[in-house]
Amino acid sequence: MQTTEVYEILKKVRTQKPLVHHITNWVTIYDCANIVKVFGASPVMAHAPEEVADMTALASGLVLNIGTLTKEIIASMKLAGKAANTKGIPVVLDVCGAGATPFRDKMCEELLESVKVDIIKGNSSEVARVAGESVQTKGVDAVDVEKSLIHVAGELAQRKNCTVVITGKEDIIADNRGNLYRVNNGHEMMAGIVGTGCMAASVVGTFSAVEADYARAAAAGLSCYEIAAELAAGKTSGAGSFKELLFDFVSGLKQDDLENRIRIA
Amino acid sequence: MQTTEVYEILKKVRTQKPLVHHITNWVTIYDCANIVKVFGASPVMAHAPEEVADMTALASGLVLNIGTLTKEIIASMKLAGKAANTKGIPVVLDVCGAGATPFRDKMCEELLESVKVDIIKGNSSEVARVAGESVQTKGVDAVDVEKSLIHVAGELAQRKNCTVVITGKEDIIADNRGNLYRVNNGHEMMAGIVGTGCMAASVVGTFSAVEADYARAAAAGLSCYEIAAELAAGKTSGAGSFKELLFDFVSGLKQDDLENRIRIA
Amino acid sequence: MQTTEVYEILKKVRTQKPLVHHITNWVTIYDCANIVKVFGASPVMAHAPEEVADMTALASGLVLNIGTLTKEIIASMKLAGKAANTKGIPVVLDVCGAGATPFRDKMCEELLESVKVDIIKGNSSEVARVAGESVQTKGVDAVDVEKSLIHVAGELAQRKNCTVVITGKEDIIADNRGNLYRVNNGHEMMAGIVGTGCMAASVVGTFSAVEADYARAAAAGLSCYEIAAELAAGKTSGAGSFKELLFDFVSGLKQDDLENRIRIA
Repeated sequence: MQTTEVYEILKKVRTQKPLVHHITNWVTIYDCANIVKVFGASPVMAHAPEEVADMTALASGLVLNIGTLTKEIIASMKLAGKAANTKGIPVVLDVCGAGATPFRDKMCEELLESVKVDIIKGNSSEVARVAGESVQTKGVDAVDVEKSLIHVAGELAQRKNCTVVITGKEDIIADNRGNLYRVNNGHEMMAGIVGTGCMAASVVGTFSAVEADYARAAAAGLSCYEIAAELAAGKTSGAGSFKELLFDFVSGLKQDDLENRIRIA
Repeated sequence: MQTTEVYEILKKVRTQKPLVHHITNWVTIYDCANIVKVFGASPVMAHAPEEVADMTALASGLVLNIGTLTKEIIASMKLAGKAANTKGIPVVLDVCGAGATPFRDKMCEELLESVKVDIIKGNSSEVARVAGESVQTKGVDAVDVEKSLIHVAGELAQRKNCTVVITGKEDIIADNRGNLYRVNNGHEMMAGIVGTGCMAASVVGTFSAVEADYARAAAAGLSCYEIAAELAAGKTSGAGSFKELLFDFVSGLKQDDLENRIRIA
Repeated sequence: MQTTEVYEILKKVRTQKPLVHHITNWVTIYDCANIVKVFGASPVMAHAPEEVADMTALASGLVLNIGTLTKEIIASMKLAGKAANTKGIPVVLDVCGAGATPFRDKMCEELLESVKVDIIKGNSSEVARVAGESVQTKGVDAVDVEKSLIHVAGELAQRKNCTVVITGKEDIIADNRGNLYRVNNGHEMMAGIVGTGCMAASVVGTFSAVEADYARAAAAGLSCYEIAAELAAGKTSGAGSFKELLFDFVSGLKQDDLENRIRIA
């Protein structure tokens, strides 16, 4: 994707200011809301079963994150997800921590059966788990993992008829029509703090709320987000100020900042 | 209000260090606690039905915020609210998201029926909804909205026998004795991040814990908070560092900082 | 403890990157996770009763914090605590707010009866309450409190067969084998923001996950954390940037930073 294409989608986020409904975890809930806000859109967090469907019906995108799931939260996610499916807005599922416990895997599976998830997002081991693969993510060198993950992403996208986003040093985005994007923006400092992964899902949800080609939306959104991270890393004095600077650079992101920095293959 | 009057109330907050009990949302709960703390007071967050009344009984103010409400949380709010009424300490209700869903409106109504709320706080559309008005807040020019909102605030204050705080570019504060304050401090950057609205309710709760004239307390508190925001905006490099600088300037706020900056009519 | 001894434990945290499972409060949950992360370890937050035992079984340490307890959360803590006991990993209990309400005291007592807690952590009044003492913490001069607290900590450590950590201007650490450490690092700015106490428990949990002598682990961890706070205080412009700088200095902490600064008696 070219700078102008990416910037066009960013401008749509800023002008349309889509409402992005989240049912997310209690650790990074502020960061998820704030990244949506500083991108110029409008986050709303609500999880009561009595209102989630109504809230989703007002929104242009739905982001689900199972980081601190309970069975009650999963029930609310199903209600919200179905409302999103009815309205035809994108549903992003961050399969946060998939593979860690049997309960988490079971809930993840139930969600994917009850709701048409449009975008499955996770890191390599999480997505591999959801895909039913036994991909090793520790102790396997980078090239092998990368190749394997492109395969995993593509196959899962076909099977679930969705878009799959695997975040990492290189983000891999594959959809059910055979499209593949590889985003090589970002900075290793992102892995040094809590919240950057969860925020990535919110970014994908925000961009896919204004761009119907979800793979393109995800690639554009992640590239913008990660370029802001690169700029923040260049100015920071450590892990704490890095996150604040990330918000600073996202809020002020200009076309010039993207020029020559976008690395989407 | 004059600088010295406002500063006197700020000094009371810092010397009396009131305990301000919150039952609030999961998105901005840290910010709500921290703004109370950096103003020099003492926040406590607790929501278990078994202890909320006991916790409120220790406090000098109670702040309720329905941002991520559930029916269980509303039940705890009722218990805490009644304990606050019994003790005679101020109850602030942030009607966060009122109007978004029928469930939210219903819970809001139930709260206002079960508990004597001393200060209803929200943005223009939220308060208008609680007041039963159909005020348009998008697509209506500023002058019309402003006039309309003063009317809405005053009428609701009379009807509910309370103080009403409408935050926005200009904050409008009306009480049941006919008092009206208009606070014109603040900075547009406040609208660019998540949490500034919720923190405003915590500030009102903190100042009303030491000043029995709640409208005066609200005006003084919001003016201090928003002057700190003005100072932060003058030094910040973006949305992320703005919030940290806001905490910095609140914690260090001096009489000199208020001098010539207070805009309370 | 000497610099090299402390630094050895810090290096173990960074190389072993222990997984530290938390069931904590909703106010400071991000800060608890992030402090573990910036120290170089790996936090995980999960509280569903269906998965907590499985999650703890993956971890090298468990941190429980009752700040925003409910009876459901306490039930999950018991399950996780028992799993930790079975695996033989350290259980830290932050008795946050103990003494504030009868419910809190009762839940605290139940936890201590159901689970073998390895490290009880709190401020002076909280630990005194758990110990059944009626130690006054306001209006008592520093020397008296200090003496009294060393006694309280030692006695509770013997009685509960555990390590006791009392945080404050001076941190007091006593174990059931008669060891006593007094840590005099830190800065008064730590008391001016929300979260530094909760993070201290997470630090103790992280260091005790790699060092079997829990009193040594706690002393080393708190000293590192508080030296980072001293460095942050020297550079900050206020309460907001102080916390971000604290994360910055923790993430970048070098042996040189510890040299001549460690004050563990």
